Amino acid sequence: MNSQSQITHKNYPIPAEYGDQLTLDEFVAAHKDKQIVVVQGLGFVGAVMSLVVANSPNNDFAVIGIDLPTPASYWKIQEINTGPFPVLSSDPKVEQFYQEAKSRGNFMATANPYAYSLADVVVVDINLDVQKVSGSQKALEDFSVDLSAFKKACESIAGLCKEDVLILVETTVPPGTCRHIVKPILDEAFTRRQLPLNYRLGHSYERVMPGPNYIDSIQNFYRVYSGIDAASEESVEAFLRKVIKTDEYPLTKLGDTTATEMAKVLENSYRAMNIAFIEEWGEFAEEAKVNLYEIVQAIRMRPTHKNMMLPGLGVGGYCLTKDPLMASWAKQTIFNSPKPLKQSVNAVKINDQMPLRVVSLMDQAFGDLKDKRVLMLGVSYLNDVGDTRYTPIELLYDELTHRGATMVLHDAFVPVWEERGLTVSTDLSEVLNEHYDVIAVTTMHSEYKQTPLIANYLKSHPQTALVDAWGVLDLAQFDGFPNSIYVLGRGDL
Amino acid sequence: MNSQSQITHKNYPIPAEYGDQLTLDEFVAAHKDKQIVVVQGLGFVGAVMSLVVANSPNNDFAVIGIDLPTPASYWKIQEINTGPFPVLSSDPKVEQFYQEAKSRGNFMATANPYAYSLADVVVVDINLDVQKVSGSQKALEDFSVDLSAFKKACESIAGLCKEDVLILVETTVPPGTCRHIVKPILDEAFTRRQLPLNYRLGHSYERVMPGPNYIDSIQNFYRVYSGIDAASEESVEAFLRKVIKTDEYPLTKLGDTTATEMAKVLENSYRAMNIAFIEEWGEFAEEAKVNLYEIVQAIRMRPTHKNMMLPGLGVGGYCLTKDPLMASWAKQTIFNSPKPLKQSVNAVKINDQMPLRVVSLMDQAFGDLKDKRVLMLGVSYLNDVGDTRYTPIELLYDELTHRGATMVLHDAFVPVWEERGLTVSTDLSEVLNEHYDVIAVTTMHSEYKQTPLIANYLKSHPQTALVDAWGVLDLAQFDGFPNSIYVLGRGDL
Repeated sequence: MNSQSQITHKNYPIPAEYGDQLTLDEFVAAHKDKQIVVVQGLGFVGAVMSLVVANSPNNDFAVIGIDLPTPASYWKIQEINTGPFPVLSSDPKVEQFYQEAKSRGNFMATANPYAYSLADVVVVDINLDVQKVSGSQKALEDFSVDLSAFKKACESIAGLCKEDVLILVETTVPPGTCRHIVKPILDEAFTRRQLPLNYRLGHSYERVMPGPNYIDSIQNFYRVYSGIDAASEESVEAFLRKVIKTDEYPLTKLGDTTATEMAKVLENSYRAMNIAFIEEWGEFAEEAKVNLYEIVQAIRMRPTHKNMMLPGLGVGGYCLTKDPLMASWAKQTIFNSPKPLKQSVNAVKINDQMPLRVVSLMDQAFGDLKDKRVLMLGVSYLNDVGDTRYTPIELLYDELTHRGATMVLHDAFVPVWEERGLTVSTDLSEVLNEHYDVIAVTTMHSEYKQTPLIANYLKSHPQTALVDAWGVLDLAQFDGFPNSIYVLGRGDL
Repeated sequence: MNSQSQITHKNYPIPAEYGDQLTLDEFVAAHKDKQIVVVQGLGFVGAVMSLVVANSPNNDFAVIGIDLPTPASYWKIQEINTGPFPVLSSDPKVEQFYQEAKSRGNFMATANPYAYSLADVVVVDINLDVQKVSGSQKALEDFSVDLSAFKKACESIAGLCKEDVLILVETTVPPGTCRHIVKPILDEAFTRRQLPLNYRLGHSYERVMPGPNYIDSIQNFYRVYSGIDAASEESVEAFLRKVIKTDEYPLTKLGDTTATEMAKVLENSYRAMNIAFIEEWGEFAEEAKVNLYEIVQAIRMRPTHKNMMLPGLGVGGYCLTKDPLMASWAKQTIFNSPKPLKQSVNAVKINDQMPLRVVSLMDQAFGDLKDKRVLMLGVSYLNDVGDTRYTPIELLYDELTHRGATMVLHDAFVPVWEERGLTVSTDLSEVLNEHYDVIAVTTMHSEYKQTPLIANYLKSHPQTALVDAWGVLDLAQFDGFPNSIYVLGRGDL
């Protein structure tokens, strides 16, 4: 086997475990009238993007999802092919779209890179991580971006893809990546393959929100796109028009792939920075004995101030915790700037440590937390979704455990906190059968807002203190209760 | 004369230059059916607030404007009484409201503190400054708030006012001022005057924008208000309902005067911080050779990101340059917090130095600016208004002058740059009769956007470079011109 042998699918050596080249060929043959779209990466974005493409209104596409044959990913491939769909969601459209794709027969998954050779369009939805170096209490000390896995994924495509393929990068990447990293990889591979540089390369990012509007957040929302040249721009636009409801949510074209890449990380940096900003004002409100929530509500009356954030426990998830760093890394590494994006980096630094304010609030309130029993309501970083990636509950949990508190966890969306290997109760009434010194609302799940169970518990346990880290509970419920009640950003209590 | 003699108007010693006690008494006698409103401070806010109160829809009020008998203020008093109205504005309603008040005969001005003894309502609209200590290139090193003048103004009122007066503070003050500074002054004076503590004290802030909607920005806009107790809240609400169009722009009551005071400085800090945030991204866009304006426009499609700011020359005016500092000062000084509002303070620090990016852009472009002739279009900090208070043009002007450039200034709204004692051309076609090496758009005046004169000039002066510090010009006009064109935040040019 030499490198030349990899470049045409006939000679491509298929590992024993793939074994589905025939299936792939049959799949393509069965969809001669359709464009073949390969979605690379079957995570939170790629898996659902695959569904949306397979469910395009005019049935234009047959979709092959591809991921690595690793323990972390291979099961998704198997589940896509045999069911159930590997992403569980509160959005009923996810299952509906999966069933529709099954009945259309236009969606399959594989680990076989042979798929790249069949694709008219490759959508890149793999992860690109930032390596954070944090000291004690999650104090961010350094960070870097390792592009090697991303580059390898691009090389897989480049070595096998059709001459006129459209490669659409949706991954959040350091600004400059398509032009300065992906394009050189494609140029090198095409030159090696003695192909003219007829490929199309573009970038567009989704604004996906796992949760009740999961599908709509991809299919029914504004998109920004770009291409490496005019032909690429046209191809990207033509593709997106068939996938997204662009009549209601018009596309926006930017002048360069670096521009859309920057737009994505700027969006998230804006959000991260506005969270970091309000953080200090929450403390101020507590000191000045006023209610920051009513203040922010009053200010948001002004259209120019509508995006002001509210205080909270902290920031989690895959985007806001890393994108500002990725941007700053690109500025310095890809564009050789002497200056980092100081404020954006600083926002991440502040947000990483946000949960410490709740810790210090508890320290002040209880003096010694040793042997105190604490019930944490919520493990997910986001409301009404079970997503524990980089959840801020982690730091709170660690600090309280470190102080000797006994922690009990509840989250209806998180039966197991996988990152910690911990079992989480999903039944609020059951978990409330025990005694707690403190009940802390740590996620903004609607359940906590709506249930009478927390108020009932406090009424019958007057010694139990309540800490609401999101200002989510209706305090009128607790009026007249003797319990100690603490709400972040509320000094007026 | 002893201090007791000051507290009833009959014994109050009136300085020779006041001499209008009789006039004041007659004015009040002529408006027996109205409430007497004294507006303290006749600056950009107080003067126009006076007009709005005097023009209340149901003619409920007679208004006495009061300011100090100093050279900086006394002329305003005289002009209010004899015309023309001392605030020039592009808003025709200002003159209209002034004429209406004249014909109603319900608006006069005085320097005589005797007025306080006549007031049913005193509206406090005086300035409260932050003392900034800046090093070279406006690098903020330290700051403090000197409350002594403000306290003295409160003492004037407290020593003379009616027992049941409503004192409504509209001045932007350090959060906590009404409760922790004004209230003790009133309590002390009332006790000394052997009066029951029947005064009402509240806080409400305007969101005034000098400019074409000057009057509307006071009369037709949302207000936030508060009172030191329930009776005060009621009095403030009753007053504002008669002044503001509260049916269209409902009032928002907050739980404490500290809360509304905080709301005001938080509003402005939010703005300052979002400007500081985008500043570094402008540099990034230039380095990465993309257009930040189109990126921000694309992002603003998302309602959650609508408030994202655009790059620009810098921040001026009376609010954004100081309010975040005032807030941080209050946090540490009034509420004894060990921690400042670091990010809000840092925003001011960054914004103060923003003009240096345009300087470095010019340095890069021209190498040596010595003996270069530079035309700066705009001296006001705000578009379509002649307001030079803390204008960022100052730092740009100083740096370029320091490099030996010859500066020529144009601003249709600023015939004289008073802070610098410089004459400014108000006629664009005239100023464009000379030769310039650089034309720099330094204020977002609509004139520069609309006029063909700049394009014509560049066409006939191909050596002249253009620097647009606000991205305000339509670059399509210059397509095909050989001139060097630089726009802040646009690396794609």
